[in-house]
Amino acid sequence: MENLNYDVWILTVGNELLIGRVVNTNASQLGKMLTLMGFRVSRIIVVPDDIEEIVEEVRRATGRVRLLVTTGGLGPTYDDLTLEAIARALNRQLKVNPEAEAMIREFYSRRGMPMTRERLKMAVMPEGAMALKNPIGAAPGCVVEEGGTIIISLPGVPEEMEAMFKSEAAKILERIAPQISIVECSLTIKGVPESTIAPAIESTAKKHPEVYVKSHPKGFELGAPVLDVRALASDVDRGSAEAAALEALAYIKQEVVRLGGSTDEARCG
Amino acid sequence: MENLNYDVWILTVGNELLIGRVVNTNASQLGKMLTLMGFRVSRIIVVPDDIEEIVEEVRRATGRVRLLVTTGGLGPTYDDLTLEAIARALNRQLKVNPEAEAMIREFYSRRGMPMTRERLKMAVMPEGAMALKNPIGAAPGCVVEEGGTIIISLPGVPEEMEAMFKSEAAKILERIAPQISIVECSLTIKGVPESTIAPAIESTAKKHPEVYVKSHPKGFELGAPVLDVRALASDVDRGSAEAAALEALAYIKQEVVRLGGSTDEARCG
Repeated sequence: MENLNYDVWILTVGNELLIGRVVNTNASQLGKMLTLMGFRVSRIIVVPDDIEEIVEEVRRATGRVRLLVTTGGLGPTYDDLTLEAIARALNRQLKVNPEAEAMIREFYSRRGMPMTRERLKMAVMPEGAMALKNPIGAAPGCVVEEGGTIIISLPGVPEEMEAMFKSEAAKILERIAPQISIVECSLTIKGVPESTIAPAIESTAKKHPEVYVKSHPKGFELGAPVLDVRALASDVDRGSAEAAALEALAYIKQEVVRLGGSTDEARCG
Repeated sequence: MENLNYDVWILTVGNELLIGRVVNTNASQLGKMLTLMGFRVSRIIVVPDDIEEIVEEVRRATGRVRLLVTTGGLGPTYDDLTLEAIARALNRQLKVNPEAEAMIREFYSRRGMPMTRERLKMAVMPEGAMALKNPIGAAPGCVVEEGGTIIISLPGVPEEMEAMFKSEAAKILERIAPQISIVECSLTIKGVPESTIAPAIESTAKKHPEVYVKSHPKGFELGAPVLDVRALASDVDRGSAEAAALEALAYIKQEVVRLGGSTDEARCG
């Protein structure tokens, strides 16, 4: 297998996200879970329920990133197109996946409901796919691999997405995740505007290229600007990651005091 | 100018969005405002604070969509790279924009603060850009046009993004927006599962291809499934858009009753 590092793209499918009816909490939730596993999320893409547009982004990711996680478009309706698009992007046949079909039959028979054409559609997957059990809803997830890229398709309903990620997808990802710890430390600064502390942040970031340092304006308290400065570090050893993040913040703390501002103690989590 | 229709891509820049520290409310807020103006938002893309990755997406959009709206990366810090990336993507020089410089000077002089190298950085824009006044914060926005694509860059702080969109960007967009009205009507269904009503939604969507019909599961009430069905229609005439959306929902209502469920009255907004 090629070495595609630990880059991940998240592809969320759904017109409701593009027209602003729904906020994309799936993407941020996935971003957090994947980052904490040590992956580098380098793209979140939202596409319409349009097969050509889904195909374009799946093709762009395949062979380029280690992992593509999709959400949405697995349901029973005519505009649930994700698995058809993945099959087309990878030039694979669409077939009823027997494991997926069994999961769906079980879901409905427990509720005393028959199998229908629409329900069976949720079992139609690209050839060679592995079905993932949906712990809450009807639509199974799907995993395929191509050109070194693993494509994991999860449902769009946030509770189903999260449940399937934690109970099913995480098992697959743990095998390919880097063995590292990620630590974020933060510091609250009062009395120094962001543009005044910017040179200190720039120099600490240059001195510690492995630490991601970023300031976040938090508004004003009693007329004085309040900023959060956050340092994100990763290392095979958790203690080393934390030490690197704290070292980056220590320099900023010192500069804040020199510039007449104040800070609290750095917190790590 | 080429006819690039009314397609819009939204490019939101920031590692904090990718690692899930911040939910991308800017994208959904922009998606809503642009859809209501009659544009078709066909992509939301989140990229890291990495110049090559921003350049790649700006190049992909240029000459392809009518409008690219970016958020984030306009501030004073070293990792605010959006305008540098746009200049590189369009092969333009970066220059201090005199209007932007005047806006920044005014912002800080009012607060009794001097101009610094970091603050002046916020005035550095691609050659030929127009600066947009920031009604709240320090960083001006930026507009450039290339290959029929207008690129509007807004700040990443949500309040600043929204204020600049409404007071500055909307004026530019109104001139190029289609002269149409968008109406969304919705219906709440009880007692019929999504997979059971799916064939009716499919056939109404096929019968009314200009209406976007979608079901949204809302959970259960007293053991019975609850669904929202929404129909989005657009037309030069608002009344016609509403009539089309209501007609699409009327068929679903009839099917729900036939299947033993109940609905409320359709609401439009």
